[in-house]
Amino acid sequence: MAQHHVVIVGGGFAGLAAARALGGKDVQVTLIDRRNFHLFQPLLYQVATGGLSPADICAPIRAVLRRYKNVRTILAEVTGFDLAGKRVLLADGEMAFDSLLVAAGARHHYFGNDQWEPLAPGLKSIEDATAIRRKILWAFECAEREPDIDKRRAWLTFVVVGGGPTGVELAGALGEIANDTLRDDFRSFRPEEARILLLDAGEQILSNFPNELGVAAEKDLLSLGVRCLNKRYVTAIDEDGATVKNGDKMDRIETKTVIWAAGVKGSPLAAKLAEAAGLVADRAGRVPVTADCSLEGFPNVFALGDMAACLGADGKPLPGVAPVAMQQGPYVARVILDRLNNRTTPAFRYVDKGNLATIGRHSAVADIKGLHATGFIAWLMWLFVHLMFLVGFQNRLQVFIHWAFQYISFNRNARLITVNALIPKGYTKTE
Amino acid sequence: MAQHHVVIVGGGFAGLAAARALGGKDVQVTLIDRRNFHLFQPLLYQVATGGLSPADICAPIRAVLRRYKNVRTILAEVTGFDLAGKRVLLADGEMAFDSLLVAAGARHHYFGNDQWEPLAPGLKSIEDATAIRRKILWAFECAEREPDIDKRRAWLTFVVVGGGPTGVELAGALGEIANDTLRDDFRSFRPEEARILLLDAGEQILSNFPNELGVAAEKDLLSLGVRCLNKRYVTAIDEDGATVKNGDKMDRIETKTVIWAAGVKGSPLAAKLAEAAGLVADRAGRVPVTADCSLEGFPNVFALGDMAACLGADGKPLPGVAPVAMQQGPYVARVILDRLNNRTTPAFRYVDKGNLATIGRHSAVADIKGLHATGFIAWLMWLFVHLMFLVGFQNRLQVFIHWAFQYISFNRNARLITVNALIPKGYTKTE
Repeated sequence: MAQHHVVIVGGGFAGLAAARALGGKDVQVTLIDRRNFHLFQPLLYQVATGGLSPADICAPIRAVLRRYKNVRTILAEVTGFDLAGKRVLLADGEMAFDSLLVAAGARHHYFGNDQWEPLAPGLKSIEDATAIRRKILWAFECAEREPDIDKRRAWLTFVVVGGGPTGVELAGALGEIANDTLRDDFRSFRPEEARILLLDAGEQILSNFPNELGVAAEKDLLSLGVRCLNKRYVTAIDEDGATVKNGDKMDRIETKTVIWAAGVKGSPLAAKLAEAAGLVADRAGRVPVTADCSLEGFPNVFALGDMAACLGADGKPLPGVAPVAMQQGPYVARVILDRLNNRTTPAFRYVDKGNLATIGRHSAVADIKGLHATGFIAWLMWLFVHLMFLVGFQNRLQVFIHWAFQYISFNRNARLITVNALIPKGYTKTE
Repeated sequence: MAQHHVVIVGGGFAGLAAARALGGKDVQVTLIDRRNFHLFQPLLYQVATGGLSPADICAPIRAVLRRYKNVRTILAEVTGFDLAGKRVLLADGEMAFDSLLVAAGARHHYFGNDQWEPLAPGLKSIEDATAIRRKILWAFECAEREPDIDKRRAWLTFVVVGGGPTGVELAGALGEIANDTLRDDFRSFRPEEARILLLDAGEQILSNFPNELGVAAEKDLLSLGVRCLNKRYVTAIDEDGATVKNGDKMDRIETKTVIWAAGVKGSPLAAKLAEAAGLVADRAGRVPVTADCSLEGFPNVFALGDMAACLGADGKPLPGVAPVAMQQGPYVARVILDRLNNRTTPAFRYVDKGNLATIGRHSAVADIKGLHATGFIAWLMWLFVHLMFLVGFQNRLQVFIHWAFQYISFNRNARLITVNALIPKGYTKTE
């Protein structure tokens, strides 16, 4: 009899963890990804802000899985699913499976305003990160050459939409760039003149953290020059600024740089998988799954990670964070192996080890099983956890050295404006 | 009286060295570049082959020059020159100068076959390097999915055109990738099956080195699986291969990956500068300069580096290598300062400290003032010189660590296929 063939779609936290758990076992595994590397998304904001290089937080999937001879990695684009026929449809072919794990992640969500995407890029891929890096550095370059004071102020105004961990981390890093990294780099203005605004729709930033930690984070952000504007709804974004609903008023913010960190939505593959299974994706574009992460009616098909609506003990979907995906991967691997051995597996239970968000130098917030920490201690915890979970020892060392240099010198080394977008449209002459 | 204004076009080796030499002096300096970073071109081939990240060999120009308060850096594109009016023309304005240094470098040269550029990319910019990296990694990915043995062989055939130092370094790195880096990464083939061909029009690769060193390099390349084919002229390149003139025969090489390292030509700005000065650029697109690197008839206008045809002691133009540019920059700075102080400066004299080219692990060739070295000693010299001249201490340490890891583990960490070109046109379905 042919070996049981497990197809894994996506080499993120869930897919990679599942492939590792199935490595060396008596199954045949194919991992399909349209990228050749695993991306450590929690540090993506550091690429966007010039602190790290793309390769520091990426690991070639093949290299990570090379020692598992029963695991094959394929670079291909999945376009759909034929669940009854047990086939994954590819842009250039198809692949048969016995068990299927889909963990294709999430993209940003503009809540019906997709036209904002080119104006206010979100941060999910390496290309997103280098695009945001380019946008930020470009704004400072334009400010250097802009003699008109109002126009210069618009180049030096940075708006981050969304006060979750990504928004807070981006805004904090922007504060450090303006106050430390670029100090002395320009001749027409002082980088500390930059205005950094963090807009959030809620009462308080970091709404998934206890209230006191959100308050502490706001205070730390303010010391970096970041103003948190809560209860603000963005109603329009254009090339010269954003319009924001503030209670009954509408505020206009003149800015050339808006970054979107306000929401995520399951990958387009989530909708396709749900449809193929006769299910309906939830409002955040996630596939509903049963207690063992499989799809209702298709016990051999699993959805994992950010694109799955997996209910927690409180009956609410688990958050779209790396630890959930990293626990679901090995869990589903176990479900598959147990079934092959005619064993049953208990339902998936997420063990929440806590929440961390960093703000900047010496500053972070942590909520570990009800234990709250802020400032230096939380920052050390953040550093340790992120280094520990980074894939690959070389990556760990490289990132550590980048951080050590950044800490000592306040410099950020990866400040490159790449891609031939040299003088973008709309840039007016100055000299 | 207003301070003397020196405008430097280009932040490469020549421009940056000139700006540093003028830093803190009694002149006003503006360095114009269309990129925000200085690129250490001698290590570009390591980015193209996944050993280093772009940021490892780049340094933000502003950061390098930040402590010189009399130096301003401008991100802008130069479009032409009005030498009589003492103005540099920009895409979005203009800039007046008292003295002008133009050091805009070189691009690759297809000798009248510019249609080959998209098929056989050359290696001059960071974007060139990531494009070549993508092309190489993509070929291995396609080979993994290609069941047809002839087609797979075409994906696994790599042709480097041009046996100068860049071609040798690229071919050597490809040999290491196939033999070491990717070992165990694939399931449908062994990466050592890859065929790497280095084509050169001359009798011998490394024609600017003494003959015995070229012979030694060929031997070392062969041990990495690279075959040197001399006296070959490429006559056609298409998507499926290259046609090569070999004596009276025409050979056809089926390959999906051709890399161009056969020739360079002065930047398009060189032609514009020559025209503005009423001069004629030479066959390699370089501006002829006088003994003090200035242009005939325009003693306050200088051309430096790869785009200048500066005659050496032997009456032949100096080679387009970093050391020439690094010596010309400070020399021209001195000419300008001497003139302001009514002093004369002796003619420029290039001090040739020798030639180095690396082939791979433990293998390089060196020609230092007639002293020849090969193998391990030459390789250590190459490592030392390249680390020493790299701009920025952090870059030096990062590169050193990358190399140390590469040395120990045979791994290359920066193996990313970036940019959304996921399934390029012409890739046929396989599964």
